[in-house]
Amino acid sequence: MAGERLDPWGTVEIKDYDRLRRVFGIKPFSEVIPKMRELGLPLSLHMRRNIIFGHRDFDKVILEGIAKGEKIAILTGFMPSGKFHFGHKLTVDQLIYFQRELGAKVFVALADAEAYAVRRLPRKEIVRLGIEEYVANMIALGLDPDKTDFYFQTNRGAPYYRLIQLFSGRVTMAEMEAIYGDVTPSKIVAALTQAADILHPQLDEYGGYKRIVVPVGADQDPHLRLTRDLADRLHDLAGLERPASTYHKLIRGLDGAKMSSSRPDYTIFLTDPPDKAIWKLKRALTGGRATAEEQRRLGGVPEACTVYDLYLYHLIPEDNDLVKIYRDCRSGTMLCGECKSIGAERLREFLERHQARLEEAREIAKSIVEPPSF
Amino acid sequence: MAGERLDPWGTVEIKDYDRLRRVFGIKPFSEVIPKMRELGLPLSLHMRRNIIFGHRDFDKVILEGIAKGEKIAILTGFMPSGKFHFGHKLTVDQLIYFQRELGAKVFVALADAEAYAVRRLPRKEIVRLGIEEYVANMIALGLDPDKTDFYFQTNRGAPYYRLIQLFSGRVTMAEMEAIYGDVTPSKIVAALTQAADILHPQLDEYGGYKRIVVPVGADQDPHLRLTRDLADRLHDLAGLERPASTYHKLIRGLDGAKMSSSRPDYTIFLTDPPDKAIWKLKRALTGGRATAEEQRRLGGVPEACTVYDLYLYHLIPEDNDLVKIYRDCRSGTMLCGECKSIGAERLREFLERHQARLEEAREIAKSIVEPPSF
Repeated sequence: MAGERLDPWGTVEIKDYDRLRRVFGIKPFSEVIPKMRELGLPLSLHMRRNIIFGHRDFDKVILEGIAKGEKIAILTGFMPSGKFHFGHKLTVDQLIYFQRELGAKVFVALADAEAYAVRRLPRKEIVRLGIEEYVANMIALGLDPDKTDFYFQTNRGAPYYRLIQLFSGRVTMAEMEAIYGDVTPSKIVAALTQAADILHPQLDEYGGYKRIVVPVGADQDPHLRLTRDLADRLHDLAGLERPASTYHKLIRGLDGAKMSSSRPDYTIFLTDPPDKAIWKLKRALTGGRATAEEQRRLGGVPEACTVYDLYLYHLIPEDNDLVKIYRDCRSGTMLCGECKSIGAERLREFLERHQARLEEAREIAKSIVEPPSF
Repeated sequence: MAGERLDPWGTVEIKDYDRLRRVFGIKPFSEVIPKMRELGLPLSLHMRRNIIFGHRDFDKVILEGIAKGEKIAILTGFMPSGKFHFGHKLTVDQLIYFQRELGAKVFVALADAEAYAVRRLPRKEIVRLGIEEYVANMIALGLDPDKTDFYFQTNRGAPYYRLIQLFSGRVTMAEMEAIYGDVTPSKIVAALTQAADILHPQLDEYGGYKRIVVPVGADQDPHLRLTRDLADRLHDLAGLERPASTYHKLIRGLDGAKMSSSRPDYTIFLTDPPDKAIWKLKRALTGGRATAEEQRRLGGVPEACTVYDLYLYHLIPEDNDLVKIYRDCRSGTMLCGECKSIGAERLREFLERHQARLEEAREIAKSIVEPPSF
């Protein structure tokens, strides 16, 4: 194995992400890490582990803002149409880091109209999921409800909608089609609404100008490019500035394909009973070899292992512990069965602790988020 | 001239309007006039004179509502991008009639985002025009500011925008293209916004359920059909019901073509100095013959005359006076010069009286309409 690059923070797809970065002009996040150290800012788990692999203007917008003592905000959105899983947690962990470590104001949009258009769920169910599933899990994870502005997209103030309406006059169908391929009225409205989500915290009506960062999966960059263009086009009128963005790798489902609410056997939900979650984990695709003998001889491939993904992104926050697992796997010292037992224990511990907080978090969620009247 | 149909309320284009009605299934307004008489309701000038030539569901929605003592509302919208002219007055007169004679609540939308997208005027100028030109002229014409809800489309409450967002998930691109041909993001948003304008007064947040009528030019029917479909599709969710609509003939410009702010020589604005307005009127296209001798022999053609249009729609509210002018023109007794002198006098009288009210109306407009903050 001499000469082979060993990187406990890497995954097999890193080359694809590098290509993605170069094609779209996203800069490597590693570039800004020295500046963060200069400013005395702690790195988040996802920054340290190269899960956040790219950025646009993170230095110019966010680090410069912090250096100058200006207000910063982080914003994300969720479509409340399924259950909250470890893919969602990846984003929420970033919100919590920005809130606790960098003093950022947090905005969370609940895309209830999009859920209504796309998933065709009853509105009452969408609203219930938004509050009791999404917001409650975020609070239980540690997002401070007093410092977070959770809102349904259909229940925001007029200046927010004014952005949507004015944006509509400054974008062409060709630009929309470049992002969406075949467009529909709901895709157009959803895209303009997302741009308003990202940019409206800069308006006086929402606390006044602040520098904004949006943490997204690599596949979301087209939205960011549209939003940057719209900020430029409404700069003079509404004082909008381009947001920064960071790009994270996507955590895979337990079969190695997409993690999604619609694939519940391969996706661990934060409300799964621990036994059920562990049952899913025990069946997960690993980087193991065909036989135990072969694995002892050649070692496993953590980069190909979906359980290792869970460790890297979520379950093993201590870097030393993770490095040990990585090495023991690569060296063939630890086989998948033993490793999964460690995972099962960590998962049970995490879920029990999280779920113990969930009931209170639900009550808080219900008391702070205003549901749309229909 | 024996056998020829003589109709002081007719115009040359009536045949086109009849065809329009038949193609789209709009019913003749004359059908509902006996029911209005039964209910003891006075007819408006434009109803009496067949300017309102068609309707959809006016009997089922509005007359039935009045008979049952239920709340009714009338709604219209203006794009504040030019000066207020006699074409606009045609709609406002209908609002005033509904407000005074039928006790309807009046809603007036100011389409400021559309003006921004289409006319590319500075936002401040759009807002100024909306308040000081459109709303002020409407109040000076007699619309009761205490009983009228004037609003900018970019400055309305969340439930109104919620309709726009939910509508976007229940309409296809094909439907949009059937209305607009080539669509753009701003046309899509504007169309959904118009539907929200028409339907939002039914929501609890805007005073609770009421029956709604929309007075439009014949060319606006596609919007109404879309709005009716959207009402059906959100009936169960938001309690929306189809609106009624009435259809009026369009008053022509002074050259016989379209009346429009962008054609100021052929359009009389309600803020034109009387001398300037009279100068326009004196140059207007009439139904006169090539020579005075010929006109005395054959008579004029009021149906072809744009000055007669002004009398019919606006300047001569007394039916007897209008019938006399019609007959004197048809018989060749009165030639165009004499007739235009009558018109000039009426126009001066109207504009002087209107403009005397305008300054106070502007102050009222500024005090009641909330301008968008950007």
